[in-house]
Amino acid sequence: MVYLAEIVGTAILTLLGGGVVAGVTLNRSKAHNGGWIVITFGWGMAVAMAVYVVGQYSGAHINPAVTLGMASIGEFSWTMVPGYLAAQMLGAFLGAVLVYLAYLPHWEVTEDPGTKLGVFSTAPEVRNLPANFVTEVIGTFMLVFGILGINANETEMTDGGVDLSSLFATGFAPLLVGLLVFAIGLSLGGPTGYAINPARDLGPRIAHAILPIPGKGSSDWGYSWIPVVAPAVGGVLGALTFRSLFGV
Amino acid sequence: MVYLAEIVGTAILTLLGGGVVAGVTLNRSKAHNGGWIVITFGWGMAVAMAVYVVGQYSGAHINPAVTLGMASIGEFSWTMVPGYLAAQMLGAFLGAVLVYLAYLPHWEVTEDPGTKLGVFSTAPEVRNLPANFVTEVIGTFMLVFGILGINANETEMTDGGVDLSSLFATGFAPLLVGLLVFAIGLSLGGPTGYAINPARDLGPRIAHAILPIPGKGSSDWGYSWIPVVAPAVGGVLGALTFRSLFGV
Amino acid sequence: MVYLAEIVGTAILTLLGGGVVAGVTLNRSKAHNGGWIVITFGWGMAVAMAVYVVGQYSGAHINPAVTLGMASIGEFSWTMVPGYLAAQMLGAFLGAVLVYLAYLPHWEVTEDPGTKLGVFSTAPEVRNLPANFVTEVIGTFMLVFGILGINANETEMTDGGVDLSSLFATGFAPLLVGLLVFAIGLSLGGPTGYAINPARDLGPRIAHAILPIPGKGSSDWGYSWIPVVAPAVGGVLGALTFRSLFGV
Amino acid sequence: MVYLAEIVGTAILTLLGGGVVAGVTLNRSKAHNGGWIVITFGWGMAVAMAVYVVGQYSGAHINPAVTLGMASIGEFSWTMVPGYLAAQMLGAFLGAVLVYLAYLPHWEVTEDPGTKLGVFSTAPEVRNLPANFVTEVIGTFMLVFGILGINANETEMTDGGVDLSSLFATGFAPLLVGLLVFAIGLSLGGPTGYAINPARDLGPRIAHAILPIPGKGSSDWGYSWIPVVAPAVGGVLGALTFRSLFGV
Repeated sequence: MVYLAEIVGTAILTLLGGGVVAGVTLNRSKAHNGGWIVITFGWGMAVAMAVYVVGQYSGAHINPAVTLGMASIGEFSWTMVPGYLAAQMLGAFLGAVLVYLAYLPHWEVTEDPGTKLGVFSTAPEVRNLPANFVTEVIGTFMLVFGILGINANETEMTDGGVDLSSLFATGFAPLLVGLLVFAIGLSLGGPTGYAINPARDLGPRIAHAILPIPGKGSSDWGYSWIPVVAPAVGGVLGALTFRSLFGV
Repeated sequence: MVYLAEIVGTAILTLLGGGVVAGVTLNRSKAHNGGWIVITFGWGMAVAMAVYVVGQYSGAHINPAVTLGMASIGEFSWTMVPGYLAAQMLGAFLGAVLVYLAYLPHWEVTEDPGTKLGVFSTAPEVRNLPANFVTEVIGTFMLVFGILGINANETEMTDGGVDLSSLFATGFAPLLVGLLVFAIGLSLGGPTGYAINPARDLGPRIAHAILPIPGKGSSDWGYSWIPVVAPAVGGVLGALTFRSLFGV
Repeated sequence: MVYLAEIVGTAILTLLGGGVVAGVTLNRSKAHNGGWIVITFGWGMAVAMAVYVVGQYSGAHINPAVTLGMASIGEFSWTMVPGYLAAQMLGAFLGAVLVYLAYLPHWEVTEDPGTKLGVFSTAPEVRNLPANFVTEVIGTFMLVFGILGINANETEMTDGGVDLSSLFATGFAPLLVGLLVFAIGLSLGGPTGYAINPARDLGPRIAHAILPIPGKGSSDWGYSWIPVVAPAVGGVLGALTFRSLFGV
Repeated sequence: MVYLAEIVGTAILTLLGGGVVAGVTLNRSKAHNGGWIVITFGWGMAVAMAVYVVGQYSGAHINPAVTLGMASIGEFSWTMVPGYLAAQMLGAFLGAVLVYLAYLPHWEVTEDPGTKLGVFSTAPEVRNLPANFVTEVIGTFMLVFGILGINANETEMTDGGVDLSSLFATGFAPLLVGLLVFAIGLSLGGPTGYAINPARDLGPRIAHAILPIPGKGSSDWGYSWIPVVAPAVGGVLGALTFRSLFGV
């Protein structure tokens, strides 16, 4: 059940997240050129809604960087990590397929192959791999550090004694986590498009490679490891740093 | 009383929802060219406010796709379905009449008949009926699936035992449902304008056909069945899928 | 104390509300051409913040249309109405003076006198007094009807027995009231600029007439009665209709 | 621990706050020209997230104007003020360094030195020091006055007896404080860019002076005292006025 919930949650994430990029960038969409506020709110609400829907079943990590971060500080069992990561990858792939279907007539009317790939996976505006790596580390550090802070804050309010691994997944907290992703997108998304989630980037990239998208180009495998490895590093660093600073 | 509440709630929905489209698209409105963020926030807040106002009286379905979805999983009585659907249609019609009145001097100063129809009902950007059908199914599936998830999430927080059919209609949940519609609009609204609600589309289309709008064109009846049938299908599928996956 | 609170609350409302119009419309402001989303969020948050600051002291009507609506259904004492209205007018005037000061160097660098008046008071885009009157009635009807609905919704949640006149002024509700004003602005603000509050329009108009604004033009007294009388009518109608429909 | 929390909170504030300015203004960022709504939401969410992360440890002043305001009305110990101010300055500096790293390849591709400085520190659009001073006083007055009002409002809801200095730092209140900063930015940020926080402006200005930013210009020390002194004055005035009006 928890793995099923992770699949569903990550599928919602990439359906709504990939969908907003499709809406803003594909030709003849009503959201065309909707701007950065549309993109960032779309991803933020995608996270919030995914967590609301499945948070009570799996804790709604929906992100390997969160799973690895939690495991690295002992708040999530390492034996469940492989299953969570696989579920997240599968869910992200499925969500990307749904985006492909929802925007079916718009692939043909859009010319630029890079625009089409951008619906699925991130790419940096200035390609500088070490710098892009650092940007993704900082963004994902902020994500996991922030989730732990929100969690500690809400625990304070509810008088402690709450299970750390699931608190941020119910009640008011999922909206806060969505707003955290909104904040990271607004502020740190400019250089690389803020993957900050290995599954969100790699799962849809595989979908891009497989799906019969008219006029698609390369899936840009040369860059693909950055939004996988850097978020994993950032997530673990964020969790370890939070624990070492605040002892939670 | 419940039917009256559904009439009022759906009227608020189409007053505020149709109003934001009028504001952004009709000439000489201060909101002219306000962008997709204005459209999607307008519809999201329209839903939230409609649910806040009448949620405590009728559960605020304000959407036949929600009513049919709930009934299909046994969470709403089939005997009340016809009354709810009729109330929703009537309310949507009345809200559209109020939009017509609120923007009275702007119909004459706007030339394009398609723009005027767009204030009342949706139209696809790329007319491809099977694809448009799929897009509306995915959007409404997400809506009903998401409402059930939010409901289950909040129930978890409040210790269970809550009446499923009304929980999402009071307290914090109506804002979440509004943000869900905001999210769907941002991410999945680009191709067809996200009717995701048969009453919201058909009621105002009838108003468009009847009202003495200067320089109006066709009410586009050829497309009109898509935003009626597809949301109904999507809503029922969303409810059945949620129940089969999570057993709620 | 309650009158002092109404003065302060209405001053916050017009400081932040007039301020956002100044920011978007006056030359050489960083918010110049920020768009309708900035205007509507600015007014919505202005209301929310004003209610948060003074709601616990006076109920934070900060709007004669709300005061008259509440009094008309017996939820506010008529003997306090004159004091509330006077306090709201004075507060709105003071807030407008603060906007003048906050944007002091920007009046000279802005040429159009209509733009300057627009920072203080509303004007319709298509001047048609009966239609403008109807638009303001519908907007204010929605405001007071919505406040009563939010109030009834939250009362439901907190198990009844709550004082109707102050519930919407504390806790979560002030944010909802701010979002209601945001929604009305998005959807119904296009034709007339949504005064929906006699004090918010007349108080700053008097400030405009008195203040030494460089290159200012007429204060447009010919239109000034519309955003005073129509909101009062709409507010009372909204309150009476809500009571007759839902018996609250 | 409290000083560490202030360092971390203020670093989050300037990482996310400076980041959003970098995103919107630096060349070849995906958020380029994202508009005022992006800037103001970025800063508002930066504050909210910073308070969520460290509010339970230090009260999350993250702003010398708040610390001085609280101390001036006896709600914060003067003996802790120097430590708080130093921690805030250090945190703001560290956050600015992180912005520099996150946007590393974008400094070279941006020509205008003023744009680069604008990522770190504020500058007025119309340079008129007395007027700029007044604008910053009004904005910070509103900030501290509003925080005290939100605090009193939430205390009312939770039945009093709550520690004033930390209430606004946990639960729902950090979001409200973030929305207050969002509101101030929307409405009062146009003339000077709303420093409203001495540390947020001076710490990053020092970072700008030290960091090896390609093609950077002057750090504009001639203006630098305004966003330090004016917010301090505004914060103390706001606190004293709130206390004298409402006796809290």
